[in-house]
Amino acid sequence: MLDYPESFRELIKQLRRLPGIGPRSAERIALWMLQSPRARPEEFATTITRAVQHLKNCRLCGFFSEQEICLLCSDPERLGKELCVVEMATDILPLERAGAFQGRYHALGGKLSPLDGIGPEQLRIGELLQRIDAEQPSEIILALGADVEGEATAHYLAEMIAPKGIKLTRLAQGLPAGGGIEHADPITLQRALLNRRTYS
Amino acid sequence: MLDYPESFRELIKQLRRLPGIGPRSAERIALWMLQSPRARPEEFATTITRAVQHLKNCRLCGFFSEQEICLLCSDPERLGKELCVVEMATDILPLERAGAFQGRYHALGGKLSPLDGIGPEQLRIGELLQRIDAEQPSEIILALGADVEGEATAHYLAEMIAPKGIKLTRLAQGLPAGGGIEHADPITLQRALLNRRTYS
Repeated sequence: MLDYPESFRELIKQLRRLPGIGPRSAERIALWMLQSPRARPEEFATTITRAVQHLKNCRLCGFFSEQEICLLCSDPERLGKELCVVEMATDILPLERAGAFQGRYHALGGKLSPLDGIGPEQLRIGELLQRIDAEQPSEIILALGADVEGEATAHYLAEMIAPKGIKLTRLAQGLPAGGGIEHADPITLQRALLNRRTYS
Repeated sequence: MLDYPESFRELIKQLRRLPGIGPRSAERIALWMLQSPRARPEEFATTITRAVQHLKNCRLCGFFSEQEICLLCSDPERLGKELCVVEMATDILPLERAGAFQGRYHALGGKLSPLDGIGPEQLRIGELLQRIDAEQPSEIILALGADVEGEATAHYLAEMIAPKGIKLTRLAQGLPAGGGIEHADPITLQRALLNRRTYS
């Protein structure tokens, strides 16, 4: 039976591997790439190759960088201030965009999850402890997820960091901005009540 | 403010240009490409380049091909049978997959649409008339869309082809397979009634 030529089928196959792209979208994108005068597919291919060649993870915090050390970690203004510990490198940008923090970050590369075989050795915890000694941050903020693994990771880190005598905090848990009571789940409500603050 | 490194932002920008990809999906795909061990982005880039270099449109029917003449048009078995006229090269595969046709195809590259500046000269109508003379098909099937422009294009083609004395047909219009009366629009129902057939 007739089908698209091989190089075209191969392009559709590669597009289908992308997250969130189904068979119909893959065909649609492939057609657009090869038919639309606006598509410039060579430019797209070059951009992928360039990104793969140039991008690495910052040796200190784990964020994406084209240098060994990222812009944040090479900014002396941020040294000795708060150190914000996150799970993934992708957590850094949303926190930075929120604009409520002036220090440095440290991505662990995941969270403790014994069932998935992820223990302390699989995470960048050793590097974190070394960094704390070297950089002497004014405070360490645990910005981990509010799920079971995030909590477990926070507990573990708290035990490791306590002997260093540095102020240790964690993100507040409670109602999300714009979230009504009626849509909040029971655990969120429990925490919002437990952590309630004096009205000022 | 902190942002992703330039080569990464550039990749997100290119992904956002793809049809159906919004800003969130573009970021998600870019992260997957650069972080997932399964992503193989270099292979993806090579596939795009290869498809661009190898793919052209068949000189006769307009379908995608890696040769000057596609597999269908170089199949002598299909010569002199029906010639199926479609709007776009992308219409050929669905018809072929339906498996109800053994002849050749001819993609016009669009339909008449004077308001968009698309007249007969913008479509591959001259090539169609030449082909009819050269290949002498047993029948010409107009498989154009059931919209106003598709109808107008069919009328125009019918006038051009009539003097050649070749049997000229068009696709049936009526209820789609699996479609109930209650979901059909009035025009579809009008056509289904008008073109009703003797129950046999």
